[in-house]
Amino acid sequence: MKAIVIHAAEDLRIEEQSVVPPGPGEVQIELARGGICGSDLHYYNHGGFGPVRLKEPMILGHEVAGHITALGEGVSGLSIGQLLAVSPSRPCGNCRFCNEGQFNQCLNMRFYGSAMPFPHIQGAFREVLVADASQCAPADGLSPGEAAMAEPLAVCLHAVRNAGSMLGKSVLVTGCGPIGILCILAARRAGADLIVATDLSAFTLSKAEAAGADRVINMAETPEGLEGYFADKGTFDVLFECSGAAPALASGISAMRPGGTIVQLGLGGDMPVPMMALTAKELSLKGSFRFHEEFFTGVSLMQKGLIDVKPFITQTFPLSDAVAAFKTAGDRSQAVKAQIAFN
Amino acid sequence: MKAIVIHAAEDLRIEEQSVVPPGPGEVQIELARGGICGSDLHYYNHGGFGPVRLKEPMILGHEVAGHITALGEGVSGLSIGQLLAVSPSRPCGNCRFCNEGQFNQCLNMRFYGSAMPFPHIQGAFREVLVADASQCAPADGLSPGEAAMAEPLAVCLHAVRNAGSMLGKSVLVTGCGPIGILCILAARRAGADLIVATDLSAFTLSKAEAAGADRVINMAETPEGLEGYFADKGTFDVLFECSGAAPALASGISAMRPGGTIVQLGLGGDMPVPMMALTAKELSLKGSFRFHEEFFTGVSLMQKGLIDVKPFITQTFPLSDAVAAFKTAGDRSQAVKAQIAFN
Amino acid sequence: MKAIVIHAAEDLRIEEQSVVPPGPGEVQIELARGGICGSDLHYYNHGGFGPVRLKEPMILGHEVAGHITALGEGVSGLSIGQLLAVSPSRPCGNCRFCNEGQFNQCLNMRFYGSAMPFPHIQGAFREVLVADASQCAPADGLSPGEAAMAEPLAVCLHAVRNAGSMLGKSVLVTGCGPIGILCILAARRAGADLIVATDLSAFTLSKAEAAGADRVINMAETPEGLEGYFADKGTFDVLFECSGAAPALASGISAMRPGGTIVQLGLGGDMPVPMMALTAKELSLKGSFRFHEEFFTGVSLMQKGLIDVKPFITQTFPLSDAVAAFKTAGDRSQAVKAQIAFN
Amino acid sequence: MKAIVIHAAEDLRIEEQSVVPPGPGEVQIELARGGICGSDLHYYNHGGFGPVRLKEPMILGHEVAGHITALGEGVSGLSIGQLLAVSPSRPCGNCRFCNEGQFNQCLNMRFYGSAMPFPHIQGAFREVLVADASQCAPADGLSPGEAAMAEPLAVCLHAVRNAGSMLGKSVLVTGCGPIGILCILAARRAGADLIVATDLSAFTLSKAEAAGADRVINMAETPEGLEGYFADKGTFDVLFECSGAAPALASGISAMRPGGTIVQLGLGGDMPVPMMALTAKELSLKGSFRFHEEFFTGVSLMQKGLIDVKPFITQTFPLSDAVAAFKTAGDRSQAVKAQIAFN
Repeated sequence: MKAIVIHAAEDLRIEEQSVVPPGPGEVQIELARGGICGSDLHYYNHGGFGPVRLKEPMILGHEVAGHITALGEGVSGLSIGQLLAVSPSRPCGNCRFCNEGQFNQCLNMRFYGSAMPFPHIQGAFREVLVADASQCAPADGLSPGEAAMAEPLAVCLHAVRNAGSMLGKSVLVTGCGPIGILCILAARRAGADLIVATDLSAFTLSKAEAAGADRVINMAETPEGLEGYFADKGTFDVLFECSGAAPALASGISAMRPGGTIVQLGLGGDMPVPMMALTAKELSLKGSFRFHEEFFTGVSLMQKGLIDVKPFITQTFPLSDAVAAFKTAGDRSQAVKAQIAFN
Repeated sequence: MKAIVIHAAEDLRIEEQSVVPPGPGEVQIELARGGICGSDLHYYNHGGFGPVRLKEPMILGHEVAGHITALGEGVSGLSIGQLLAVSPSRPCGNCRFCNEGQFNQCLNMRFYGSAMPFPHIQGAFREVLVADASQCAPADGLSPGEAAMAEPLAVCLHAVRNAGSMLGKSVLVTGCGPIGILCILAARRAGADLIVATDLSAFTLSKAEAAGADRVINMAETPEGLEGYFADKGTFDVLFECSGAAPALASGISAMRPGGTIVQLGLGGDMPVPMMALTAKELSLKGSFRFHEEFFTGVSLMQKGLIDVKPFITQTFPLSDAVAAFKTAGDRSQAVKAQIAFN
Repeated sequence: MKAIVIHAAEDLRIEEQSVVPPGPGEVQIELARGGICGSDLHYYNHGGFGPVRLKEPMILGHEVAGHITALGEGVSGLSIGQLLAVSPSRPCGNCRFCNEGQFNQCLNMRFYGSAMPFPHIQGAFREVLVADASQCAPADGLSPGEAAMAEPLAVCLHAVRNAGSMLGKSVLVTGCGPIGILCILAARRAGADLIVATDLSAFTLSKAEAAGADRVINMAETPEGLEGYFADKGTFDVLFECSGAAPALASGISAMRPGGTIVQLGLGGDMPVPMMALTAKELSLKGSFRFHEEFFTGVSLMQKGLIDVKPFITQTFPLSDAVAAFKTAGDRSQAVKAQIAFN
Repeated sequence: MKAIVIHAAEDLRIEEQSVVPPGPGEVQIELARGGICGSDLHYYNHGGFGPVRLKEPMILGHEVAGHITALGEGVSGLSIGQLLAVSPSRPCGNCRFCNEGQFNQCLNMRFYGSAMPFPHIQGAFREVLVADASQCAPADGLSPGEAAMAEPLAVCLHAVRNAGSMLGKSVLVTGCGPIGILCILAARRAGADLIVATDLSAFTLSKAEAAGADRVINMAETPEGLEGYFADKGTFDVLFECSGAAPALASGISAMRPGGTIVQLGLGGDMPVPMMALTAKELSLKGSFRFHEEFFTGVSLMQKGLIDVKPFITQTFPLSDAVAAFKTAGDRSQAVKAQIAFN
C-alpha cells in the first residue's frame, strides 16, 4: 500500500509500505478520503511549526475516513464495507489527565501525524489503515469526504463548547480558513444569533457567507475594519480567533463587550496582547486544543443533517497528485478544504 | 375597542373598552394575533392556579403581536404599519433584582394578564394596545401569528439557557404541549444531538416529531416507558420537564445520567421528588421562570429562519369565537397553539 | 483481630477475624479511631435505609485512621508507624464514569461498609485493615481522631464545591448533625460571609455556634422560624440541606433568594418539594453524594490548621463499648461525632 | 480643609479647599486614613499610566475611611461619629452595564481620583469628604487603617471570585505588592490549599509568608525559578498575576496545569503572551477590574476577624508628610501599604 510521507520541508513522497492485519479490538480500513490540515501544511512548507520540527520521515494526515475491510477479534457492531470516520485522538487512558477525563491533555497522546513527540507519531494518509474500533465513528449516510471532515469539525465543536452557551450570542470569527468556516457552522448550530466574520480573502469570505455568517468584512479592503462594533465598550459576546494574527486579536478585543469570551484557535508563538483592554473589560481569553468526544458528536450532527460541510470541500485530488493537493490546500483564493482521494 | 375579559372560571366576556393614545416613548398597536397560554386556560377553567386566584375582572393574554397605528413622542426607529411582537415582561427597572440584571425576578413586575398581584395586571387581548416601545420587537418578515409565538418561544429559550451549553447533549422532554414543543425547537437550535420526547397524546407526539424529536414515546401506550434509558445510571444530560406531573419527573430522573440537569417548566404545587436518586446521581433540578432578553433573541432567530414555529400554530379563531378558541386551546388531541385573530 | 459486625437491626457483634498481610501496593494499618456515621446508625437501628437492606453480616465503618504496621511490595513514600487517614472511596477506575473523572459515580464502587451491592462491601471497623496505599492520606501532625474525621469532612467539602464559589455568600444550613456542622466549617473555610444554622436540638446548635455560625435558630422553640429571611423573595444564596426533613427544605426554599443554590445532603426517600416556589425563584436544587479527591484536600486543610474538627469529636469509646458508642452516636442531645478507639 | 492635589509628575501639593455640607442621602465624613495605591503612585511618578494622562489638577486617593460628622436629609441607620469605609466605586446606575448588574463596567463611572475621563474625577484625599450613604460601609470594630484597606481588599476579593471556586485549589501569586498580598489573604479565605508566591524583594516575600503563603520564591535569587512546578504539564489551578511583568506571566503559564485559570490584575500595556502554551493547555486568561459589592463583603469579613489586614499597613504618615508617604509607598524594600493620617 502507498502512504504520503514527509521527509523535510517541500520533500513529500508517496512511498510503498506493508499492510498489517487488524489485531484484537482493531479494524482494517481502506482509506477513502483524507483532508489536508494546517499542521500538515506547516510540515510540508516549513518542516514544522514553532519548536516542533521534523526529525525523521513521518506519514502525514489525521483527517481521514474509509471503509472497513477486516475486523479484528472481538470487534462487534461494525461490518465489512461500512464507512468509518477515524478519530486521530488516541490518548493513553492511564495518565493523570486521562484519569480526570481531560483526554485531549493526555501526557502520552498518540495523535496521528504529529512531530511533537519523538519518535514521531505516524499519520493516517495511507491506503490501508489499522485503527482501534473505539476510535471509529460509523458514518453511514455520509459521503467519505464529509466523514473526513469530522476531525476539523470536532476541533470547532470543542472550541464552541469551551465558549459556553451560545444561544442568542453575538459572535465574531477572525480568520476564515477551514477552522474559521467550521466555527461559523458550529456556532450557528449551537444557537448563535449575530455572526460576523473577517478575513483578507474575498474567496474565503464568500465561503463564510455560505456558512451562514450574517456579515463578512474584508479587512484588506475595509479601512474602518471592526470600528463600528467598538462603541460603548464593544459588541460581541464571543470571539473565535482563528487567524493566529496579532492584529486580528487586537481589533477583536476592541470589538468585544465587557465580560466576553475569546477562544484562541490559531496556533502561533508569542503574541502581543493588549492586556489593559483585556483587564479593564474583564475578558476571558481561553485556549482550545483539539477535542475528544466531540468527534462522535460531529458525525452524528452531520448524519442528522444539522451541520452541512459539503460546500466547504473545495477540491479532491487523486493520491498521485498529492503534491498538487498540498500546494492548493494552502491557497486561500481557491481552497477551504482540499482532500485527497485514496481509492 | 373590544377586549377579552375573564370574570370568573368559565365566565369569559368580550367587552368594549376605550382606546387611549400613546404617551411619550409608547406605541399604539392594532392587535393582529394573540396566542392562548396555559395560564390563560387556568384562569378560564379554574379561575386561577395554586394560590393565584382571580379577585376582579381581568383582561387575559400575553402572547401578542400587531401593527403600529401611532407613535408616541420621542419614539424613533419604528414606523406606522410595522409589525411588532410585544413582550409582556415589564419589570420596574429599580428594584433589587432589576438592579442586578435579574429582570424576570422584578419585585414589581407588571406581566400582562397576571392575577398574582392585586390589583391584577390587565392583559393584552384587546383590539388596541398601547405599549412601551422598549417592550416591542420589530418583526418584519414574520407573519403576525409567528410574531405572537415570540413569547412562549422566549420562555423556552430562557429554559435552554438555564440548562447551560446544549451542544451535542442528549435531551429528554417530558410533556409536549406548546412549551414542550418549543423546548424541542430551542434545544435543537442550541445544538442538542439526541432528543427524546414523551407525552400521553398521539397528536401531540406527532407534532413533537415534526419539531425534530429523534424519538417520541407515548407513555400511555408504552408499558416499559423510559426504562430503556435507565441502564448504567441513566442516559440523558438534560431534562426539560414540561408536564408538571410527578410521574414524568420521577421516571425522567431515573433516565438521567449522573451530573445531569433538569429544568422544571411545568408549574404546579408541591411535587414529590425521588430525592435519594437526585442526591446519589448528583442531579441539578433548576427552576426556569419566564424570560427577559430572550424575547428579542427569539424574534431574531425566527426572522433568520433558524427557528420555525409556523407548524405549531394549529388553529386561528376570530375574536368573536374567543370562547371556542379557549375550549380548543386546551385539547391536546388537536391543538398545540391556538391563536385569536383580532383584526 | 476484632471487627464490628452488624448482623441485623440492633444485632451488633464484636467478632474475631484473621489478619492478612499487605499485597503489592497495599499497606497494613493498625486502626486507631473509627467515627460512627449516619449510615452506620441506619444499619444498626433499622437494618438499612430506603431500599438498601442488610442481606448478610457486614463489617461496619468507613471513617477510619490508623498507623502503618507493614508496607506491601512497591509502596514508597510511607513509613512504619506513620498515621494515615484512609479513604473509603474505592472506585474501579475503568467504568464509564471513572473514565470521565466522575469517580464518586463509579458503577463498581467498593465503598467500605455498604449494603448497596450484594455481596455487601465489608467495612473498616477492624483492628487491622489492609488498604491500597493510594487510598491513604498521610496525616502527620493530626491526632488519630482528627484523621478519622477526614471522611465526613470530605463529604462536606464536596458539597461546598458543588455549590460553586462561596466567597461572601449568605449560607443557610438546615440540620446540624455532624454533616451540618462540617458544612458550616467548610462553607466558612470557603469564604462564606453570613452563616445561619437551624436544628431542633439546643446541644447541636451550641456546637453550630462553636463551628462559627453567625446565628443559630432552634426551630422547635422559635415560632417565626426563618420568616425574617423571607422578605423580598428571600435572603440566602446557598442552602445546605442536611436534615433530610421536608419541612426544613420547604422553609429553606422560602428563605432563599432568586437564583440561589440548594445542596441536598440528607438522604431520604421521596420528599415533597414546593415546586412552584422553586420554579418561580429559579432555584437550583443539587444533589451531592460522597466525594473523591476532597478527602486529601480535607487532610491538608486540617494539617495547616485551616479547619479544626477537634471540638466536634464529642465522645471516644473503647472497642469493647461499641454498642454504647452506637447508642450515643445518634443522640443529638449529647453527640456530634462519636468515635471508637481501636487501640 | 486640606486636600492632596497632583498637578503633574512629582508635583504633589497640599491645598486648601472649601467644605461643603451633605446633600440629601449624603454623609459628611472627617477623613481618618487614606491608603496610597499603585495608580496614585503612577500619577505621582509619571503623571499617568499608559494612555491615561493628567490634563488638569486632580485630588488623588480612593482608599479612604473616616468618621461621620453630619448626616444629610433622609439618611438613616448611621450615626455621628461612626467609622465608615467609603467605596470609591460610583456607577451611574442607568447605563447598559449598570442595567445588567455589571456595575464595575459602568459607562459613566465616577471612580475617585481617576484621570480616565475628562474632566477628571476628583479623589478622596481630603480632610472632609461628602459621599452618598449608599457608598459607605459602617466599619464598627475596625481601626480606621483597616477600614481604609477595604478598597484594595475588594479588588482582590473580586479577582478571587472571577477565578471561580477556590476550595482546595493550588494557587500561584506572582508579584507581592499590596494587591499580591491581599490576593493571598483572599485566596486563603476562599479555601485555597497550596499557595506559592513570587517576587523580587525579600521584604515583600517576608510579608507574603506572613499573609499565609505556603512557600515564597525570590525570583531574583532562585535560578530555577518555578521550574519545579513545570512537570507533567504543570501544577497550579489558579494564577493571580499581580506584577504586570511579561516574564512573570510567561513562567506562570509554564507552571499552570491544563485547564487552569489565570487572573490578570497588574495593569500594563501590550504584553507578549506565550499563546502556543496557553492554547495547548487550554488555559483561561481573565481580566479582573476593580469590584463592586465585594467592598461590603471585605468590610464584613474583616469585622468578623476572617481576614486580617493589619500586618500589611506598614507605615502611617501625617498629612503634612504626604510627599514622604508617596516616596515610601512605592519602595518594595520597606512598604506594603503606606497610609496617610488625615486627623
